[in-house]
Amino acid sequence: MILDIIGRGNVATHLYNAFRNINDVTVNMINPHTLAGLNPNADLILISVSDNAISEVAAKIPEGSAMIAHTSGSTSIDTLSDNKRYGVFYPLQTFSKGKVLNYSDLPFFIEGSDEATTKSLCDVAGLLSNKTFRADSNQRRALHVASTYACNFVNHLWSIADDLLQKNGFSFEVVRPLLQETLSKTAVMSPFDAQTGPAIRKDTKTIDSHLKLLSDSNVDKDIIDIYNLLTSSIIKTHS
Amino acid sequence: MILDIIGRGNVATHLYNAFRNINDVTVNMINPHTLAGLNPNADLILISVSDNAISEVAAKIPEGSAMIAHTSGSTSIDTLSDNKRYGVFYPLQTFSKGKVLNYSDLPFFIEGSDEATTKSLCDVAGLLSNKTFRADSNQRRALHVASTYACNFVNHLWSIADDLLQKNGFSFEVVRPLLQETLSKTAVMSPFDAQTGPAIRKDTKTIDSHLKLLSDSNVDKDIIDIYNLLTSSIIKTHS
Repeated sequence: MILDIIGRGNVATHLYNAFRNINDVTVNMINPHTLAGLNPNADLILISVSDNAISEVAAKIPEGSAMIAHTSGSTSIDTLSDNKRYGVFYPLQTFSKGKVLNYSDLPFFIEGSDEATTKSLCDVAGLLSNKTFRADSNQRRALHVASTYACNFVNHLWSIADDLLQKNGFSFEVVRPLLQETLSKTAVMSPFDAQTGPAIRKDTKTIDSHLKLLSDSNVDKDIIDIYNLLTSSIIKTHS
Repeated sequence: MILDIIGRGNVATHLYNAFRNINDVTVNMINPHTLAGLNPNADLILISVSDNAISEVAAKIPEGSAMIAHTSGSTSIDTLSDNKRYGVFYPLQTFSKGKVLNYSDLPFFIEGSDEATTKSLCDVAGLLSNKTFRADSNQRRALHVASTYACNFVNHLWSIADDLLQKNGFSFEVVRPLLQETLSKTAVMSPFDAQTGPAIRKDTKTIDSHLKLLSDSNVDKDIIDIYNLLTSSIIKTHS
């Protein structure tokens, strides 16, 4: 098959590198500004640009027989509805430049304008990955929100922890085994059942001593607000 | 050496199992209520009970030559100051019953009543682990607070994500590669530098669409408050 990937960001680059290693796929990376080199015989054109630019790029693609899909978690399939066969090809991962990934367990969430298109897009994702799911635009938005909590917000909490550790002479590495084990536990029980810590024990003595340390450390008010809000949310969720 | 571990919870059980496999260590697990079987020739007595019970248990230990240390992250070393040689032997990990751990990279944070005691406690931790650190009571409290953000609060965010995923027909497993990669990234860059997502991009369009989905999903008000607070904290931290 012939695959054109429009974009030059992290997702486009990773998908390009992944498909380059697949037999029987001819893959080209296309500059989103010029669209130079678009193959008139392409079977699939992936638009992997920032959410705001998707419709603009799609409008500039010459009419042809290719399926057209975007790779965005939070953009509706309808953005591409001016095309004949269109869809969404969403890889759920945090992509960084230069960081090697194992694509075989990369989850893809697929939506097509019709059943044949959905099936074709699933087949293409299946060339890379064992984890291909169907998801409509609402489900995909929920996936994106869930990922925001589970990845972006989590990373921010790690950043807060990193600050506290560094202020006390330790590196983030001292908590790595703890974090790895916290994640591993969710493979054998749900995060709900895996909850530990002073909040779920309603251990107000420890909570007060934590708040005193935070206040003595002159941390930003946000950091204390986050402590209080997550503590009360854990208590409420588990009572 | 002769090691008595007072306690019967997860930490006590894990430490007992870990030291059982070390040559030249004779380890006993002691019931914290009866203290039956305490060895008068013990070199070290570890008190691994709930924070509130440490001083009470310590007061009941017959006077002898053993060093006495507790294993708590948030309890001062002074709790044991009625003893001759005392300290803290704090393993930074989340311990679950029946879950096998690799003890060789388990970080221990050690504090002793004097230099010789600190050194001896470090040597004992070194029998299990390559990662032995010294930490005074303030540093250890900061470690405990950092772990609360990095482990307990993170787990709660994963629980929120799990709920959203399940409501939309997906299991937590679909985000596991994302979470694993999010953690892996912090090994090559700081969590601060690894931050991604709509908040750091100030992508208000996506943020608004997330908030709409949360509100349409009738989630608890806390969940929305957490979204707003973490989003604004990320924006503030990175601007």
